Amino acid sequence: MAKSASVFGPVPGIALGHEFANRLELWGAGVHRQTQAGISARQGEGAESIVLSGGYEDDEDLGAVIIYTGRGGRSAESQQQVADQTLTGANRELARNVLTGLPVRVTRKVTEAGRTFYRYAGLYRIASYWAETGKSGHRVWRFRLEELVAWDVEPHVAAPAADLFTAQEPAPAYGPAPRRLATTLRLVRDTAVTRQVKALHDYHCQVCSERLASPAGPYAEAAHIRPLGAPHHGPDVLANVLCLCPNHHVLFDLGSFGVADNGALLGLPGQLRRHPQHAVAPEFLAYHRAHFYEPQAGELA
Amino acid sequence: MAKSASVFGPVPGIALGHEFANRLELWGAGVHRQTQAGISARQGEGAESIVLSGGYEDDEDLGAVIIYTGRGGRSAESQQQVADQTLTGANRELARNVLTGLPVRVTRKVTEAGRTFYRYAGLYRIASYWAETGKSGHRVWRFRLEELVAWDVEPHVAAPAADLFTAQEPAPAYGPAPRRLATTLRLVRDTAVTRQVKALHDYHCQVCSERLASPAGPYAEAAHIRPLGAPHHGPDVLANVLCLCPNHHVLFDLGSFGVADNGALLGLPGQLRRHPQHAVAPEFLAYHRAHFYEPQAGELA
Repeated sequence: MAKSASVFGPVPGIALGHEFANRLELWGAGVHRQTQAGISARQGEGAESIVLSGGYEDDEDLGAVIIYTGRGGRSAESQQQVADQTLTGANRELARNVLTGLPVRVTRKVTEAGRTFYRYAGLYRIASYWAETGKSGHRVWRFRLEELVAWDVEPHVAAPAADLFTAQEPAPAYGPAPRRLATTLRLVRDTAVTRQVKALHDYHCQVCSERLASPAGPYAEAAHIRPLGAPHHGPDVLANVLCLCPNHHVLFDLGSFGVADNGALLGLPGQLRRHPQHAVAPEFLAYHRAHFYEPQAGELA
Repeated sequence: MAKSASVFGPVPGIALGHEFANRLELWGAGVHRQTQAGISARQGEGAESIVLSGGYEDDEDLGAVIIYTGRGGRSAESQQQVADQTLTGANRELARNVLTGLPVRVTRKVTEAGRTFYRYAGLYRIASYWAETGKSGHRVWRFRLEELVAWDVEPHVAAPAADLFTAQEPAPAYGPAPRRLATTLRLVRDTAVTRQVKALHDYHCQVCSERLASPAGPYAEAAHIRPLGAPHHGPDVLANVLCLCPNHHVLFDLGSFGVADNGALLGLPGQLRRHPQHAVAPEFLAYHRAHFYEPQAGELA
């Protein structure tokens, strides 16, 4: 634990915008523990740092949001993508940050006025991961990085970034709930569609049939099959949602299981629970399988 | 569904700050369907509107945040709290909004320059509910209301409030994730303490022993027993957290079950899973029982 705390997060003395002449300086400062690889990770713990060198044709650097491409499958000579990437090694560690919430340091390779150097860009969280067919026609793993700023954690305290990773939380004054500090219920946005799918299934999970009971009534979640929002842009329609318990919602979003067009579960035994007024569109199930689900050996996906 | 959509949310033509001479006008405009009661609710669907009249000694109106006291247990003559409140009737419907995410309209009784009237204060979400001993010495149910503003839903679109409740989401451009639109993983904030409790239990739920497996690694959540943040101010220490699966995290936060000082589960069969290096403090378990758990008949809590 103590070891992790010193590896993940800010590096003392290195402020946003700090410039490094080359990769060796970046390594020496403790910002990036690799001298060549773009991802620095600890096996089983997560990724701690990435360097954006502009080398990947599929990367999209939008400043506060970065769509980052995993490693592997590139030719050492041409630097072209010549094979599929897998969710293993450093890619798996990047995905692990989605689960743990640990941040990655981001450093950009910059060329300005004829000079090339590295500029530290601060901490990002890894919001999601998915697979897609890259420009090369090969499968690549993609990661959505979002810049972390102090108000992401506690809007009423102008905390220095270093405070984000201390064990003791300051007790906040009354005010809007901190954005990422989910101390009560994780609220999944309610719409007419999400209410409808829960009512049709009477709050039973479509995977395990569980129905969570509470003093305030039954609880279930509506999971979008093709996610809403960038970059997936799935629609908020009944054909694109499932009624799930929180456990199966998490597992579905993380790609632990998929659903075949006929409703058979992939990666789990059994069949999706159906309701005659709730038709799930095969195109959204296919999207989820292609982008989130990693089929097991011998399984048809 | 269609019926709900017209009951919850904004009332067409009634803007923030709209003034009403009396309760009858408020009723006539469709803002509050009760002419005397402070809470207007639909049984089994949730609460749609409240009127803050200043009548409850335990209410705290902080503007963007309101700590609202439930109904019941007051003397009709003295308006004093003379008995305990229960999580039934309108109180249960207010609690239900925590689960569904449906907003309540808030109207304040105001006295300005010798004139008393009602002013519409817009939409609030109900963030959490809990029980406590009020100023009278009797048990009251409390609700934390947080003002909903357009940027809570989609920071990049200056949407009128009416758009918050339409079925079709606009596809957002790249940018920070909308605050309440949890389309991927519900991220519970990671700290040294939360990582530690998950590592000690190796991601097994302390209630059901489930361990969620994903392509990116195992997944569990750290649940604070006495919640962090206002008004509970629990500490982020190992003695105040449990390692839970998402299902049991939701159920614990909602008060579906409690834990006795000896680790026996209350409201569920069985015993809390233990680890020799993870001592849970009885004071935090007692806090959770007192504020969140409703004991069943015949059960010692």
